[in-house]
Amino acid sequence: MATREASYDALKRELATLNDLRSLEGLAGWDELVMMPSGDGAANARARAMATLAGVIHDKATSKALGALIEACDGTPRGKDGTLRGKDGANVRRAKESYAKATAIPSEMAKKRAELGSRGYQTWVKARESGEYGAFAPVLEEWVALTKARCELIAPGADAYDVALDDYERGMTSARLREIFTVVREGVVPLIEKVYAKDGPKALRGRANPLSGTFDVDKQAELARDVAVALGFDLTKGRLDVSVHPFTGGCGPDDVRMTTRYKADDLLEGLSGCVHEAGHSAYEQGRSVDYRGQPVSEAHSMGVHESQSLLWERMVALSEPFAHFLLPKLQSTFPGRFDGVTEEALYAGYNVVKKPSVIRVESDEVTYPMHVILRTELEMDLLSGKITVHDLPKLWNAKMKEYLNVDIENDKQGVLQDVHWGSGAIGYFPTYIIGQILACQIFNAAKRSIDDLDGQIKRGEFAQLLAWLRVNVHERGSECDSVDELMMKVTGKPLDAAEFVTYLTEKYTKLYDL
Amino acid sequence: MATREASYDALKRELATLNDLRSLEGLAGWDELVMMPSGDGAANARARAMATLAGVIHDKATSKALGALIEACDGTPRGKDGTLRGKDGANVRRAKESYAKATAIPSEMAKKRAELGSRGYQTWVKARESGEYGAFAPVLEEWVALTKARCELIAPGADAYDVALDDYERGMTSARLREIFTVVREGVVPLIEKVYAKDGPKALRGRANPLSGTFDVDKQAELARDVAVALGFDLTKGRLDVSVHPFTGGCGPDDVRMTTRYKADDLLEGLSGCVHEAGHSAYEQGRSVDYRGQPVSEAHSMGVHESQSLLWERMVALSEPFAHFLLPKLQSTFPGRFDGVTEEALYAGYNVVKKPSVIRVESDEVTYPMHVILRTELEMDLLSGKITVHDLPKLWNAKMKEYLNVDIENDKQGVLQDVHWGSGAIGYFPTYIIGQILACQIFNAAKRSIDDLDGQIKRGEFAQLLAWLRVNVHERGSECDSVDELMMKVTGKPLDAAEFVTYLTEKYTKLYDL
Repeated sequence: MATREASYDALKRELATLNDLRSLEGLAGWDELVMMPSGDGAANARARAMATLAGVIHDKATSKALGALIEACDGTPRGKDGTLRGKDGANVRRAKESYAKATAIPSEMAKKRAELGSRGYQTWVKARESGEYGAFAPVLEEWVALTKARCELIAPGADAYDVALDDYERGMTSARLREIFTVVREGVVPLIEKVYAKDGPKALRGRANPLSGTFDVDKQAELARDVAVALGFDLTKGRLDVSVHPFTGGCGPDDVRMTTRYKADDLLEGLSGCVHEAGHSAYEQGRSVDYRGQPVSEAHSMGVHESQSLLWERMVALSEPFAHFLLPKLQSTFPGRFDGVTEEALYAGYNVVKKPSVIRVESDEVTYPMHVILRTELEMDLLSGKITVHDLPKLWNAKMKEYLNVDIENDKQGVLQDVHWGSGAIGYFPTYIIGQILACQIFNAAKRSIDDLDGQIKRGEFAQLLAWLRVNVHERGSECDSVDELMMKVTGKPLDAAEFVTYLTEKYTKLYDL
Repeated sequence: MATREASYDALKRELATLNDLRSLEGLAGWDELVMMPSGDGAANARARAMATLAGVIHDKATSKALGALIEACDGTPRGKDGTLRGKDGANVRRAKESYAKATAIPSEMAKKRAELGSRGYQTWVKARESGEYGAFAPVLEEWVALTKARCELIAPGADAYDVALDDYERGMTSARLREIFTVVREGVVPLIEKVYAKDGPKALRGRANPLSGTFDVDKQAELARDVAVALGFDLTKGRLDVSVHPFTGGCGPDDVRMTTRYKADDLLEGLSGCVHEAGHSAYEQGRSVDYRGQPVSEAHSMGVHESQSLLWERMVALSEPFAHFLLPKLQSTFPGRFDGVTEEALYAGYNVVKKPSVIRVESDEVTYPMHVILRTELEMDLLSGKITVHDLPKLWNAKMKEYLNVDIENDKQGVLQDVHWGSGAIGYFPTYIIGQILACQIFNAAKRSIDDLDGQIKRGEFAQLLAWLRVNVHERGSECDSVDELMMKVTGKPLDAAEFVTYLTEKYTKLYDL
């Protein structure tokens, strides 16, 4: 018994060491994008240093010593039920899964992925600039082959897409995704048609959107910072900076670094980008203190991470009560610009459905799911061999017509718009829609257990919601084996796409007077 | 032959890997002092991560594989003279020295030093606050014992202080230091007496110092940044930020991070602090490109590093021609404040000798050497056992009376003023005086080979001086075995304290009309 306890303690120490090194990887990555000087020399030196650190981490993450500790702890009798229980059991399972994945891949394949990641990204950047899909297609072909080969090594004989998904969304499967997509597609496609038949939200018809025009970027940044802090971003445990591509990173729960960007002619993008990252940050800052540095304290998945950003960005900050909180802030930040604007008009202003909706990252919550479903269906079919890389633009454009009634004029506006595939992130897209559905479902559960949450949002009181999320989502970390299991604990039922469709339908029926 | 070539290539790769990890150590250290959020959690996580990284570096720096590569390359026949020549030979020697030192110390002793470093620093902070030397003495006793034990392991039977010195100033010895000190003491002590007999610099008698009063700190920072860039600080290869304790660090020659601080009531401190760090930065940014990541490209020693900061801070920025460059900048940065000020008055203003001179870091270039000699003599005697930790305050105060004619009223103003001993840096102080002498000697050599350097400084042209330093000092890195060897190459003679005494005597005889 003592030996088994000792093994688990030794395993935890080893995992914490890995976490230490990864926190430095996080720091170096953040610094590269936010602070590093602009010279090529600095970039080259950083790339070298990060590759060296990645090598050190890889060696430790695949060491025989770590494997032996995991084996010694796996299923270790503990307590009455005979196994490591609760979070400790999950902690060992998470360690075991990562170890199995890391050791399944020969180091040449890992190097090839790193090399293709960098080359593929560069190729994509150039192809998007020129609009030449033909320049990008060979890279994507390499990625499809490499992803299939990697999935086969990890889980021989299994469906490749299920294995690829697992990198981003533990426990998710293609079959479950198809169920979810059917519900969303059947609810959202007709909703978009109805919305498109109207001339904008009811409260704005014949009026200018109060959010249009240009706004001083320094004042935007000040406002966004105020809002992030009001929502609960803790500046003693993180930083907020400006970078070209907004992201949340840093060194772990006690040192979360979020960035945003501001454009003079897009007030909504800067503000909602900041709220989005504040949601990611809240999840990170809320991770379990008792399991600091352990895998079980990490975010459940990319989908759950996205649910936390979208919960704040969309369920809170695109809500009707939020307009009551935000309007006076806009009025004092931009004197004169919001005089005479009603809460109703502001609410309508930040909920305009894009027509046409061409670019995913610029789309709204109604058309967004269809962008994501389209990409996911295509990458599923790519991995299964049902379609070829060569056919992709044609299929992309056909789906855009079917789902969003858009004619795509060129591949820059179509298949070349996203960074993911060039970097080899196949299986990532569905986490966006999972996040969107979870955000809705989790927010509804919070509403049921918090008295007058709408009133609290109106008054700018977010502490109770944040505390509820801490306990129900953030501190749970990775203790569940799937998102359905997590949702059972948080909301009493598995992931439920219908609840999301209902939310969109009710909200936009009212807004657009459908 | 091929095998030997291969060994040296393999050694260089291994050394570059170590350098990569150290660059991340540099980044994490900089970030901790400049960017990290204020919460205890962030500080604790960073301390953990840095300890883990230090452990990884230690393992690599003491690995048997590295030792074998060094041995294979040591004295490897190459070229006509039969050994690795020039910079490559020095590169192997530097690697061999570091490896020998790192492997001589058992890991318990390394841990003890880390532990005492942190505890000693904290103890010193508290003791300096309260002024109680008794609270600090036990820590210093531990440091003396530990330093002696470490030196004995590194070089059994050798003079402990010689060994301790070598950590900071390769090739320096107590005997050589005593020679240098005699020259400085005999020249500087009577000079101070003569200066003290006068009522300030001639140009300021009966007038206010134009640098006294308060100045907006943001404007100070702007001015200092302009000056640092004018001197040659390359912002594509570094950053300039504000921190509580100014320092130069970062990730290596392509990413040098310097910091300064500004006080409203001390314009000179902020500006000369910035110039000082710009000098350190210039050395780092000027390191050999051909030997990137190799030990031979690193700074020769702490003394030579200090020579580069002091060359710019004192030989350039405290010079008469610099007043011509600086005055219009002061006039435009602080409108009205420097109206009617002459270059002569400004030059006198930044060269006032402190009376009394109590605190080293606040002292001027005339009294500074005596502060440093005092400390070095005391630490030499501590290590040799000639004096005890208990007697230190009494001896300190007696020397202050002898060298600087100061009565020390309490230990806060005396023996407790510096951070070094609490952190175990015994043997560090003399690098300050070595730096001061080298700065003078190197600057004189530059003056001899650059046409009209004074005129260039007047006109704010620093590029030729910087280029000369690049070739003569920066790119040489660690290729020499001692500072005397380096000075032979740079100036044609070994370190020469008399040249420094002459500089001070001539300058202050004129300034003070002695």
